[in-house]
Amino acid sequence: MIGIFDSGVGGMTVARAIERLCPGYPLLYFGDLAHTPYGSKSPETIVEYSRRNTEFLLNHGAEVIVIACNSASATAADALRSQYRTPIIDVITPATSRAVAVSKNRRIGIIGTRATVRSNIYEERIREINSRCEVLSQACPLLVPLIEEGWLNKRETKMILRRYLYSLRLAQIDTLVLGCTHYPLLSNLIQPRIGKRVQLIDSSVEVALHLKSFLDSRPDLQEKIGHQPAKNRFFVSDSTAPVRQLANRIFGRNIHLKKAHA
Amino acid sequence: MIGIFDSGVGGMTVARAIERLCPGYPLLYFGDLAHTPYGSKSPETIVEYSRRNTEFLLNHGAEVIVIACNSASATAADALRSQYRTPIIDVITPATSRAVAVSKNRRIGIIGTRATVRSNIYEERIREINSRCEVLSQACPLLVPLIEEGWLNKRETKMILRRYLYSLRLAQIDTLVLGCTHYPLLSNLIQPRIGKRVQLIDSSVEVALHLKSFLDSRPDLQEKIGHQPAKNRFFVSDSTAPVRQLANRIFGRNIHLKKAHA
Repeated sequence: MIGIFDSGVGGMTVARAIERLCPGYPLLYFGDLAHTPYGSKSPETIVEYSRRNTEFLLNHGAEVIVIACNSASATAADALRSQYRTPIIDVITPATSRAVAVSKNRRIGIIGTRATVRSNIYEERIREINSRCEVLSQACPLLVPLIEEGWLNKRETKMILRRYLYSLRLAQIDTLVLGCTHYPLLSNLIQPRIGKRVQLIDSSVEVALHLKSFLDSRPDLQEKIGHQPAKNRFFVSDSTAPVRQLANRIFGRNIHLKKAHA
Repeated sequence: MIGIFDSGVGGMTVARAIERLCPGYPLLYFGDLAHTPYGSKSPETIVEYSRRNTEFLLNHGAEVIVIACNSASATAADALRSQYRTPIIDVITPATSRAVAVSKNRRIGIIGTRATVRSNIYEERIREINSRCEVLSQACPLLVPLIEEGWLNKRETKMILRRYLYSLRLAQIDTLVLGCTHYPLLSNLIQPRIGKRVQLIDSSVEVALHLKSFLDSRPDLQEKIGHQPAKNRFFVSDSTAPVRQLANRIFGRNIHLKKAHA
């Protein structure tokens, strides 16, 4: 199975993209809603939660782990890779490669949670690929609560976005990485406010494309995972009505969320 | 010691009020920041976390427990009282008594998190005291994130407040209970938007007054707690820079937060 974990339901945009782009592989999702959000918590706490989520997925038969949460990818991916032998794919690396590939003026913007921006990981990764790129980051801590409230088209959301994007717009970036799995739900508000010439990079789509080429290169793993009519399973450590609504909205169909502790 | 727990640092407005109004009693605070916020989580999860916090306080010598979190008071107070013999004071009862006492037109508004409003507990308590009161509730899930970001005077915060308060204003309430320990930090924005004739009830102050009269009536407990120059201790299950800043802002001095697991 392809194991996917996130701090909540935002990572379902990743699961949805994997379902579309890697059809036929069974997915196993764990959303750690009992501890959500990760983005405002300390690095040690994020690593601890990420370990528990990984154990849960491995115990339920995952053969590859996708960290569908930018805060956990930024903070815990290295710790997990040094502890487990299972391949671990983070949501950051594919988006950075794409951003460097598409940027023409080498001015790349990043938006994400506080934890993601504080980790500086996007800047490091981008400059590892091309040290001449300039990276401008902006933490947007209110976007996740606004999205989880379903305020996807409210005036206040637009104003808060304009405020967050202001300095990136001034800096004349030509590429903007949506460094949080919730943000694709706001793409249509972000695009006009950052400028229509700026290319938006959706980290959910990029990680799904990356997973696809990774699996294409590993027939041994493909066989283990079992390419078959997929039976996807979704587990969450807590469940409320707004969360179930958001999950259904992301998938465009009814998703059954089963409660479990990591 | 007086044990106080909250899902985060909001409950420090309660600790601060107790420090002012019940001087000399040593305080023991536990802020469950590793699991914050409670307001958007399910009832079962809130009860489970509240049990762990209570055990932590009892194991560290608390002789009375104050639940300084509206979501936990609404959801877990009964479960805790049936499990423990230590007196447990919730943050809701004192505010409801005060609201009924000061309201003249018997139209009382409540603002709080989703969990608090969903529990319906303010309405039930108020109508137990006076069944002729009309209670109007409004969930304000974005206020805690805005306060924790320090957006205490931003235009977006004012607009969101106006939106949340709109129906309460139309309903011509004369009393508004701030049913979340974070909200007193927004009092000066709430008052002009709900109308200057509306009386705001600060649940932090009310619970401190209630605790004072409870202790005055229980000399045995006073002796156990030890009325002495206070050495207050503050524990948190996670700690980040914005949280430490908010704690210092609430107390108006530097507060040392010690990390511990409940």
